[in-house]
Amino acid sequence: MAEPRISSIDGKLAKEFAVPSHVEEEKEKMAAFATHHVAAGRRVVLITSGGTKVPLESRTVRFLDNFSSGRRGASSAEYFIDAGYAVIFLHRHRSLYPYAHTFSTINMLDALQFRSGEAASGHSGEVVVDQKVLPNVVKMLKRYQEVKESQLILPVEFNTLSEYLHLLKAAAQALSTIGSKAMFYLAAAVSDFYIPASEMPEHKIQSSNGPLQLSLNMVPKILSPLVKDWAPQAFVISFKLETDPAILLEKARRALDTYRHQVVVANILDSRRGYVVVVTPSSQAELILTEEDVQNGVDIEERIVSNLTSAHNNFISPDGS
Amino acid sequence: MAEPRISSIDGKLAKEFAVPSHVEEEKEKMAAFATHHVAAGRRVVLITSGGTKVPLESRTVRFLDNFSSGRRGASSAEYFIDAGYAVIFLHRHRSLYPYAHTFSTINMLDALQFRSGEAASGHSGEVVVDQKVLPNVVKMLKRYQEVKESQLILPVEFNTLSEYLHLLKAAAQALSTIGSKAMFYLAAAVSDFYIPASEMPEHKIQSSNGPLQLSLNMVPKILSPLVKDWAPQAFVISFKLETDPAILLEKARRALDTYRHQVVVANILDSRRGYVVVVTPSSQAELILTEEDVQNGVDIEERIVSNLTSAHNNFISPDGS
Repeated sequence: MAEPRISSIDGKLAKEFAVPSHVEEEKEKMAAFATHHVAAGRRVVLITSGGTKVPLESRTVRFLDNFSSGRRGASSAEYFIDAGYAVIFLHRHRSLYPYAHTFSTINMLDALQFRSGEAASGHSGEVVVDQKVLPNVVKMLKRYQEVKESQLILPVEFNTLSEYLHLLKAAAQALSTIGSKAMFYLAAAVSDFYIPASEMPEHKIQSSNGPLQLSLNMVPKILSPLVKDWAPQAFVISFKLETDPAILLEKARRALDTYRHQVVVANILDSRRGYVVVVTPSSQAELILTEEDVQNGVDIEERIVSNLTSAHNNFISPDGS
Repeated sequence: MAEPRISSIDGKLAKEFAVPSHVEEEKEKMAAFATHHVAAGRRVVLITSGGTKVPLESRTVRFLDNFSSGRRGASSAEYFIDAGYAVIFLHRHRSLYPYAHTFSTINMLDALQFRSGEAASGHSGEVVVDQKVLPNVVKMLKRYQEVKESQLILPVEFNTLSEYLHLLKAAAQALSTIGSKAMFYLAAAVSDFYIPASEMPEHKIQSSNGPLQLSLNMVPKILSPLVKDWAPQAFVISFKLETDPAILLEKARRALDTYRHQVVVANILDSRRGYVVVVTPSSQAELILTEEDVQNGVDIEERIVSNLTSAHNNFISPDGS
């Protein structure tokens, strides 16, 4: 596979993808966050999480999207924090968030109870969480508050593909100053296709015009400049999600060959919550949850993060020092 | 505009859109719900809410979607209940839900506080909602619980376009028995385009194949058989969202001409939360929130629902009896 030309990718990014107005501000925040935590002896992981939105119209009614609730990114963030990392959480607006993601399947109002106050105390009543409905709420709330208090997570939001690409570039540049102490954990489900701004209709596409022909360009492979140019010393993990097991490992190996980063976490849509393969240029490790693990509430992300933090150790100090 | 042929729409629905396995079960629930509430003297509104997902692959990684948080549907449901209706809430999985939607912009964990219990009482502590963060929580929770208790909302979920189409047909047939006491409030943002199952690749589309050409068919206009065939006595409102104000009213009028239903609520993407036009064959009413309304927290849905419930009265009893 021909190596993507970096200068052309950078040019394309500037030309065809609208720059979000807050990108410089976010970059400064990320740089300050990284410097602060490295000075305090921590490593920093940038986690990307959730799908990207690809507008079909400038005043967007319709868009292409990628399957992703953001569960893997949110859950992984918790394990990275437990492992001593500070986390920049670059996530899709409204995708799942660390600690809160465990409650995402219920309507919060089903977990609340009203308790009337005593008239004498002038207390009009309070609303209490029913811990039978949310058995983990105390644990999750305490952990969330500790992490927030110690400012161990910096949340950064994207919505469209353009925002994602520019914010990832900003993050890579912001983290370049901390060298190999930076890890990139690129778990977001990023579109491979887009419609350039110049070819996009302004208004909602009219169905009265008949069947719709869409012609989508390929999104520049941003991993290439990230690894070579923006954060050349960092430890970089990309994710590969396929539906066809027959091509998964070959695609993972080809990505490592092309982009020269450290790890691909490969997984299949249907089994992604119980099985992944951690692929490096020299190794291949299957991580599997047994039925017993599942019954005990073990997350595959715990295994993934444990594997990768060890690998990051070795990457920083290959001689074990 | 040529009138869509109903028999061909029904045939297409059966052939090109996978029937969800639970559709018959949902239909029975909806029919029982309608019969029960009409016997109790209520009217029944079917609200559709949220966007539809249009898969590009059978094992779906990528999909087309329509902009919609489900806010209008969720908020409208509350006002219909206040006006004495029972609500079938046919909504996109994870879209906003009545009463809960007011809290959708915050992370719930930011609104909770832990309060430790007294060791003597064997009480390990409780989690309380901070009413400074959620000032409306008591009101919303009480209302939500009352409505749940009285079973005034029947929630039905869809995710894909296919599920939406089949469930809407089932709803229309289920409500046909209550005649003009049924209202259809079709606020969901439904895709106009889809890829037939027969033309869909099984596996994730590979970006290594180069730029993507998509050819999308037009979704059958289900409003046509709904009005003529499935629920011919019902009071039917469709929504028209455009980005270009110049074509909005003409499109609304054309829809009324084509489908022969009662009302189109027309709105523009950018101003939809403060301005709509309620268009009928013989009238056109602008509903506008003033700055003062906005400051007082008035929702445009309150105005829309008030307009439509009056119109529904007149529809049921044209002579005012």
